[in-house]
Amino acid sequence: MKFKIKRLKLYTGWPYVAVMNELDAKLLGLHPMDRILIKSGTKSAYTILDVSQHGNTLKRGELGVFEELWDALQCSLANVEPISKPKSIEYIKKKMEGFTLNEKEIFEIIKDITLRRISDIEITYFVDSFYINGFTKQEVIWLTKAMVKTGEKLSFKGKVADKHCVGGVPGNRTTMIIVPIIAASGLKIPKTSSRSITSPAGTADTMEVLADVTKTSDEITKIVNRIGGCIVWGGYIQLAPADDQIIRIEHPLSIDAEGQLLASVIAKKISAGSKYLLIDIPFGIGSKCKTKYSAKRLGSAFLELASYFGLRTHVCFTYGSEPIGNGIGPALEAIDVMKVLENHKDAPLDLKVKALTLAGKLFELTGKSRKGKGYSFAKQILKSGKALKKMNEIIDAQGRKVKHWNKIKLGKYKRNIVAKRTGKLKGIDNQSVSKLARILGCPDDKYAGIFLYKHVGAKIKKGEKLFTLYAEVPHKLKEGLSFLRHNRVLSY
Amino acid sequence: MKFKIKRLKLYTGWPYVAVMNELDAKLLGLHPMDRILIKSGTKSAYTILDVSQHGNTLKRGELGVFEELWDALQCSLANVEPISKPKSIEYIKKKMEGFTLNEKEIFEIIKDITLRRISDIEITYFVDSFYINGFTKQEVIWLTKAMVKTGEKLSFKGKVADKHCVGGVPGNRTTMIIVPIIAASGLKIPKTSSRSITSPAGTADTMEVLADVTKTSDEITKIVNRIGGCIVWGGYIQLAPADDQIIRIEHPLSIDAEGQLLASVIAKKISAGSKYLLIDIPFGIGSKCKTKYSAKRLGSAFLELASYFGLRTHVCFTYGSEPIGNGIGPALEAIDVMKVLENHKDAPLDLKVKALTLAGKLFELTGKSRKGKGYSFAKQILKSGKALKKMNEIIDAQGRKVKHWNKIKLGKYKRNIVAKRTGKLKGIDNQSVSKLARILGCPDDKYAGIFLYKHVGAKIKKGEKLFTLYAEVPHKLKEGLSFLRHNRVLSY
Repeated sequence: MKFKIKRLKLYTGWPYVAVMNELDAKLLGLHPMDRILIKSGTKSAYTILDVSQHGNTLKRGELGVFEELWDALQCSLANVEPISKPKSIEYIKKKMEGFTLNEKEIFEIIKDITLRRISDIEITYFVDSFYINGFTKQEVIWLTKAMVKTGEKLSFKGKVADKHCVGGVPGNRTTMIIVPIIAASGLKIPKTSSRSITSPAGTADTMEVLADVTKTSDEITKIVNRIGGCIVWGGYIQLAPADDQIIRIEHPLSIDAEGQLLASVIAKKISAGSKYLLIDIPFGIGSKCKTKYSAKRLGSAFLELASYFGLRTHVCFTYGSEPIGNGIGPALEAIDVMKVLENHKDAPLDLKVKALTLAGKLFELTGKSRKGKGYSFAKQILKSGKALKKMNEIIDAQGRKVKHWNKIKLGKYKRNIVAKRTGKLKGIDNQSVSKLARILGCPDDKYAGIFLYKHVGAKIKKGEKLFTLYAEVPHKLKEGLSFLRHNRVLSY
Repeated sequence: MKFKIKRLKLYTGWPYVAVMNELDAKLLGLHPMDRILIKSGTKSAYTILDVSQHGNTLKRGELGVFEELWDALQCSLANVEPISKPKSIEYIKKKMEGFTLNEKEIFEIIKDITLRRISDIEITYFVDSFYINGFTKQEVIWLTKAMVKTGEKLSFKGKVADKHCVGGVPGNRTTMIIVPIIAASGLKIPKTSSRSITSPAGTADTMEVLADVTKTSDEITKIVNRIGGCIVWGGYIQLAPADDQIIRIEHPLSIDAEGQLLASVIAKKISAGSKYLLIDIPFGIGSKCKTKYSAKRLGSAFLELASYFGLRTHVCFTYGSEPIGNGIGPALEAIDVMKVLENHKDAPLDLKVKALTLAGKLFELTGKSRKGKGYSFAKQILKSGKALKKMNEIIDAQGRKVKHWNKIKLGKYKRNIVAKRTGKLKGIDNQSVSKLARILGCPDDKYAGIFLYKHVGAKIKKGEKLFTLYAEVPHKLKEGLSFLRHNRVLSY
């Protein structure tokens, strides 16, 4: 049946929403939550139908569409046909019952998530089921394959390397230092990063302070082939796009299902055309892996999966019990990164050493350096200014946002926190630091955040500055101060 | 912060949806999917926020609300405040991890479902977790208590009886015969029934052919106190309302979690003020309980839970391998019921005998009859015409829709299906009958359905009518005939 498309100017973020008049729905034998296929010329979209119970929203023959669907269709007339429940619903139920899925079943589920043929409720059943029942190693391999197959693929000339960090440590912005070092060496490194989900800043949020991070696959291919590297937001392109949907569903309950984490990381690297991969797994109090044992276990699982797909991989287990660098928050972290690249006297040493270590390991993995020589090769590139030059090329290629980091204006509502007594800094709690930074407005308020003056082990004098809070709006600074009254961020 | 309420004239069916301008959201520190409390005078509602990404839908200071929320608030100005994640999210996660929940935790989850403080995705995690991990007996008791506590309660003078059928057998409309028989005896029977979810007709859909079934608690109380009984749609009042939401979430995957089923039935009966309960568990090929063993197990679980709450309960295990009565579909089933009540010569005998058996058991349970005498007491009430008189009183009290069942006009597109050869009817497949009736338009098309002329064991002559299909629209009849070409409904 033909419908006139009416744009409803409402957003959902993900599911396509279409609404039709009750009488049209009856004529087509459709109920709310039924699936339809909307077609117009070469464009088509699966969606789940809402039915308008009264005639006042939509006239007969009109199909109301929310903005996401409007963007996908961009037409004024379309044909609507009912479609039946996809097979994948059956497979999800099979997983709920505790059975193992086969390759075809996993592919169907992932394909239908990507095509928006299954609803949020149905995706949640899938996510919860594999969270509770787990995935076998074989299922994780099939999940990875399915994620790659249902997304875009990039490809580059030459040796392509990549890095990934499992996250959890505030301020850990090594990527933005490693990428220019690697690219300056002649290797390719097409880095796609995520925005923050629960942390104060993702690499994409931090890079966005300096440059545009929303680039299409074609733009990425051109930039990387020309200058060797990029640092873009992965969510803007469709590498393993099913993963974004699974993460969106995991978010409300802060779930992290290991099998899906493994598949998602490896699938994105394969899709990005990488052949060499360095994985950073920080461990320690307040990071994602609490113990070295759990870090090692995760590392082995990564190595096993990556090797199945012929990805040469090295895992680094790093110290993750306190934040890295001085700044926490997009702008403050961007400044830290640029100071390291400029070999500035105030550059945070811990961030610099960690970035060089990881870059060095990647040089050794790709054969650019002999074993044991990677660190000094990376250091040499950094010291020579080649890394800074490369970073500026990347920023310019992506679209520069500030002339120099010293032009960045931090949140104008600030407060210094000073030591109440003399002592020695015993610990900085990652989770409290993250929470405080989020209260101050991170990551949406890019110029908000925390500047830490000390690292664990440092001596502290009474009255000395411990950290500075920055906020863009006064009430967030107030809330941050109130958080500090009830929570311990630093112990000394 | 104060907002002007803007009605968006869109429906979701359940979740409250509110939308605000991106800049207002930023000011309040809110993101999409965050929870807010909307207050206006004495009215308030929890909802999950959508954010409008462009300014063209909502101006600053406007809060767009969907119809469900509009109905709940009915105001032009309201105060909006952000609220934090409720504790229940933590408890849902605990259940996912395989732990047992305590009374307080279950109550918090059920309360937050009722208050719409948790999203569909979050409810799905809960449903899937108890589907996979199960509930302990103690958890089922707490779940029942929580469902009662979070809903409305009815109360009546005198002895209050009720009946419940676990369903699965098409045409099984004994309720509409039992209620007038019981009410005619002087007992009270406030029957709330469901609409069809996956079957061709629920009792509420069938009763709706004859009378209005949407009655408020006050109306139900008045009707039952005056004439002894009613047959209304349970979804219109708020008895154990959390259950409706759980069922809505279970629907897309056709899940039936036993613990939740038990809690939901018993909670609704307690809320309706019942003290005596008869449960009908049909078993056999094509019904919900495939074997007598599974029926017995379910029956014991019902008895145990009901006895905990002091509900005197009897379970009947009935034959469920073929449809009951002749008609399948709301109007056809209503006609069957009225024929039995009128002692009509064409009344389906199986339906009549089953209804009398169940009514008889209920008389024995309540002490109205001595053991073994219930059936004849019920038969006497039916034969005397008192049951028919009572049914007419109930129909009039709820709002009569047709003068007499013989005025009901069945779907005008019909087709007789005749026997291809002589033989003996070996089986009628419940699931195929249900599916066929749904294809013909049931339950939405009330006058569509199937009339079955024979029961299992009957002799069949070649060319004799086996059943008649009724549809309201021609293409549904066509689809029904196509279904018959590929599926076997009767075997002989």
